[in-house]
Amino acid sequence: MSQTLGTWVDGAVASTVPADDRGLQYGDGLSETIVLRGAAPRFLDAHLARLARGCSRLGIVFTAWEALRTEVARIAGQAPPLAILKIIVTRGSGPRRGYAPDGTLEPRRVLMLFASPAMPADVAQGVSLRVAALRLAENPALAGIKHLNRLENVLAAGEPGHADHFESLLLDARDQVVCGTMSNVFAVRGGRLITPRVDRSGVEGVLRSMVLREAPGLGIPANEGSLALNELLAADEVFITNVRIGVVRARSVGQHHFPMKDIVPRLAAHIEALDA
Amino acid sequence: MSQTLGTWVDGAVASTVPADDRGLQYGDGLSETIVLRGAAPRFLDAHLARLARGCSRLGIVFTAWEALRTEVARIAGQAPPLAILKIIVTRGSGPRRGYAPDGTLEPRRVLMLFASPAMPADVAQGVSLRVAALRLAENPALAGIKHLNRLENVLAAGEPGHADHFESLLLDARDQVVCGTMSNVFAVRGGRLITPRVDRSGVEGVLRSMVLREAPGLGIPANEGSLALNELLAADEVFITNVRIGVVRARSVGQHHFPMKDIVPRLAAHIEALDA
Repeated sequence: MSQTLGTWVDGAVASTVPADDRGLQYGDGLSETIVLRGAAPRFLDAHLARLARGCSRLGIVFTAWEALRTEVARIAGQAPPLAILKIIVTRGSGPRRGYAPDGTLEPRRVLMLFASPAMPADVAQGVSLRVAALRLAENPALAGIKHLNRLENVLAAGEPGHADHFESLLLDARDQVVCGTMSNVFAVRGGRLITPRVDRSGVEGVLRSMVLREAPGLGIPANEGSLALNELLAADEVFITNVRIGVVRARSVGQHHFPMKDIVPRLAAHIEALDA
Repeated sequence: MSQTLGTWVDGAVASTVPADDRGLQYGDGLSETIVLRGAAPRFLDAHLARLARGCSRLGIVFTAWEALRTEVARIAGQAPPLAILKIIVTRGSGPRRGYAPDGTLEPRRVLMLFASPAMPADVAQGVSLRVAALRLAENPALAGIKHLNRLENVLAAGEPGHADHFESLLLDARDQVVCGTMSNVFAVRGGRLITPRVDRSGVEGVLRSMVLREAPGLGIPANEGSLALNELLAADEVFITNVRIGVVRARSVGQHHFPMKDIVPRLAAHIEALDA
């Protein structure tokens, strides 16, 4: 359970947003979930760069980057040693009813600070995954960015069985692996990493990008590609990533178990030790 | 331009919702847009039935139906002669961060009353439509219901060219017609109506259901089916529907013009005159 420690709307302490905000009306916005560690936001530039890409893709003209950075720094400075900061940027409020975005809208930013629950100690030994029954829809216009239309994630995380596992993996309609409900997924095959492309569905996770950037420096080639479920199950090692959990080894996917090998622990330690 | 005349959250006058509402966080909820005419909600039972189907599909345990009906009646009684009431039901607020829906959540309802702008007089002569560049994703888990994940509609309505037309038609990745950004679409061929199925994408509009129910009584067979763009363009007549605009003839789709014929005006007049 995560506890809310504070909420700020457009820089002011506030626990509500106007009901006519298009984030509520249509999911017309984006989010970032940032780890605060020792009063500093991790991977902040990567998060803000993804947020900017998302705004650009949705045509949201957000310009308050300096104010946002100032607020993030101020909140991080008053946060517990380990905390989570969620940023939402929406297209803003009305004034019109209707889908068409109006160029005069003023985007709104919502920042929420949460206590970060400690990761269970046995997570480092590996976690169990399952495959969700829900299949992800494919839409290149929405893939990759972390927009607020997340009902697929909600439905998958609400499936019977999800609570018995650490995470549920999501496939597309062609049985290709895409991601988890709140994570990206990698397979290790012959010493190389492969992670599914996120150009038709899924989210381009910040920790996924860090793994793709850092692995080659450890002598581990890493690529995006297609990854069918049977290829994932045939992998030497499998791991999932997000900024809160880091690099986490999969002990099992459904009934299939993976032996403990060495690449995932090396990567996990390296990523954990990154400064930014 | 629509003007907000009032907002109520869980029955109380309020213009805001908590920032941790899952409607904002994930688009985790549903909406209905109801026409109020002469202080009475049109098609209320059909709207509430669709809302109930949506709650069921998303696993939102909404039980405040009596309170909702009472509020709708009270608001309708104080509304201008022609107005729009938008209902949003979300899964509610936290308490947890994360996608998994929590069975203890208390759904939240938001009602917003809008003035209804008069329909331009020339709409009855037919409107011009275009085909959106965006292709709808297909997800049977989300199709048909009017959930709050509406970024596809927003992006299509934001395309250059949309503002020059009354509505943009949306196709799926296989070039099948699905619906408009805010309407359903019908083709008339040989005296029969066909409207695209909405079991893989699109919304099951209340006026669409009324047309399917009423047309046979006028001697016009009506069915759901698949409708490729070239089949739509080859139709005798084309029309779009939603509860606010009613049955509206398409004068053109892109460069293709349709001559004025008789079925659409008959249907439009019949639907317009329905009591509920």
